[in-house]
Amino acid sequence: MIRRHLLAATLVMLAAAPAVAQTAASTPADKPGPLVIERQGSFFVGGRDVKSDTLSTLPAYAPSGTITVDQMYVRYQVPVDARRRPLTLIHGCCLTGKTWETTPDGRMGWDEYFVRKGHPVYVIDQVSRGRSAADPSLVNSVRLGKTPADKAPPIFAAGHEAAWAIFRFGAEYPQVHPGMRFPLKAQEEFWKQMVVDWIATLPTPNPTVPALSELAKKLDGTVLISHSQSGIYPFQTAALDTRGIAGIVSIEPGTCPAATGDLKPYLGMPVLILWGDYVDLSSRWSPRLKACREFAEAAKKAGGRVENVVLPEIGIKGNSHMLMQDDNSLEIAEWLFAWIDKNVEQAKR
Amino acid sequence: MIRRHLLAATLVMLAAAPAVAQTAASTPADKPGPLVIERQGSFFVGGRDVKSDTLSTLPAYAPSGTITVDQMYVRYQVPVDARRRPLTLIHGCCLTGKTWETTPDGRMGWDEYFVRKGHPVYVIDQVSRGRSAADPSLVNSVRLGKTPADKAPPIFAAGHEAAWAIFRFGAEYPQVHPGMRFPLKAQEEFWKQMVVDWIATLPTPNPTVPALSELAKKLDGTVLISHSQSGIYPFQTAALDTRGIAGIVSIEPGTCPAATGDLKPYLGMPVLILWGDYVDLSSRWSPRLKACREFAEAAKKAGGRVENVVLPEIGIKGNSHMLMQDDNSLEIAEWLFAWIDKNVEQAKR
Repeated sequence: MIRRHLLAATLVMLAAAPAVAQTAASTPADKPGPLVIERQGSFFVGGRDVKSDTLSTLPAYAPSGTITVDQMYVRYQVPVDARRRPLTLIHGCCLTGKTWETTPDGRMGWDEYFVRKGHPVYVIDQVSRGRSAADPSLVNSVRLGKTPADKAPPIFAAGHEAAWAIFRFGAEYPQVHPGMRFPLKAQEEFWKQMVVDWIATLPTPNPTVPALSELAKKLDGTVLISHSQSGIYPFQTAALDTRGIAGIVSIEPGTCPAATGDLKPYLGMPVLILWGDYVDLSSRWSPRLKACREFAEAAKKAGGRVENVVLPEIGIKGNSHMLMQDDNSLEIAEWLFAWIDKNVEQAKR
Repeated sequence: MIRRHLLAATLVMLAAAPAVAQTAASTPADKPGPLVIERQGSFFVGGRDVKSDTLSTLPAYAPSGTITVDQMYVRYQVPVDARRRPLTLIHGCCLTGKTWETTPDGRMGWDEYFVRKGHPVYVIDQVSRGRSAADPSLVNSVRLGKTPADKAPPIFAAGHEAAWAIFRFGAEYPQVHPGMRFPLKAQEEFWKQMVVDWIATLPTPNPTVPALSELAKKLDGTVLISHSQSGIYPFQTAALDTRGIAGIVSIEPGTCPAATGDLKPYLGMPVLILWGDYVDLSSRWSPRLKACREFAEAAKKAGGRVENVVLPEIGIKGNSHMLMQDDNSLEIAEWLFAWIDKNVEQAKR
């Protein structure tokens, strides 16, 4: 009943003020109307307490105590009258959930786009990155001479020059692939998105994976949308427990499940593996695409609903590895919305 | 029933003025109606490029290259028909912008509350914390034996036990002050908010301060609302340049400007210094309150509009250092909204 009133209110709003337009049929444009949110907020999933004697080397903060690590930060928005599956957006290497927010050149991010299209959206920061804590103990232990220097944690940052080729802006820095659609004029804003990455200090599977599993069960049917370094996480999450996973979208994964491995966890849900352009020009990415094609073929033979889509092969050209920020990012989002609608939403009815 | 009234009210409001769904008269309750956002997003302020030869010790990422550091992450929401000043929310030690979001026990954060009250709200992550990058170079330099171990960066995390007294949940862990209003039953969720703090690796003033100045000029009249370790930042920002600062609210600042120092930067704007309860019981906090009282008196004598408010002295009792998360957090927000309305909004008319 309350829902119906909300819907009535929304209808009145639509009639009175054409600016308020977020039905599934609408396409958010550059100047969309107001965004109507049923509820929003943030929380953590997972986490464990660890004791340490090297939390600090500063007099103002005690060296000994308990901290909580391995939790995953989640920010969410639920649109009014949401009838579509919640989407969980999982960023890649050296980045945070910022990946999915406002693009470097100031356009709407996928986080808002999908809310406007009727999906609840959950954006995470991977464990030990962004707003999800890391543990400084080992650095301080080295600083105090309690641990050998070569055992300092292998944290890292990706430099602009090396990231240039990884993100396929061009073959190598500062070359640009012809027709490449990443907004390079705003590249300074993009580089600011990159953070220190503690991933090499974490076990396998990354604690983000069980946290995603816990989140999926809580959401009771989410599409896990991963990117790059996190590409394998939805598969690892499904291998852990398929409950709560309504589908997998893996964008340019660093790794696909092995074609010769146990495919069973992936056979009961729609799976999309999505690629941008210039992949075959990259010695880093072309073997990964090949391995993912093999996985998709093997899974299909085993009865799975797995698609491996290379955007230029369906007529969408010029996309970099950061396709959710390219100048046609909302065109791709629109395509992805339709894919999810057909393969996840329609399938559940 | 309340829900139905809210919806009815929303309908009436929509009929009268579709875009104005949040007036100053409304008070967000536990079950508020939909939130109507004019626009939202995120961006960075500040930042500089640094070159390093120790970005990484991992084969997959190049050791040499350029990274961008000292930028400040900002997430914002602007309500429809916003007529009030933008508020900039600046978190304290060992925390991130999460401080102002959903409380540990799941209630609405100040970030959303003030949007519902008609203020655009800007939430930052301090430089080198959360989604604002740090520089791993020195850790890797130590790891590679290029820098002596004792020169490893003094990063730290605050342990639960020590933080307990700092946040004044009680005199010391695990004692609890009688009547203390922090939601301790949800303390596990709170500890998950704490992250590694790189602040001791940064120069003074912290690069967050010039970034706040740049943000203030961009917003052209914002109230800077700081907390604890960042308490001094709005003052440092004003000392740098008063342009763009419409007012200062410093919640339980670790430091106030010296009473005997140059007070001129703070005389042209309303300033509130706000304290919770149990301050006099804390050897850490009572001298800080005393110093802030002295600053406020000196600034008032010099013609400034500076108030030092201790909540129990105006009848609001039981607040911890994390008063924006205490069980009466929205009551305090309501009081603060009225203070800003009187001292900043009315003053500008």
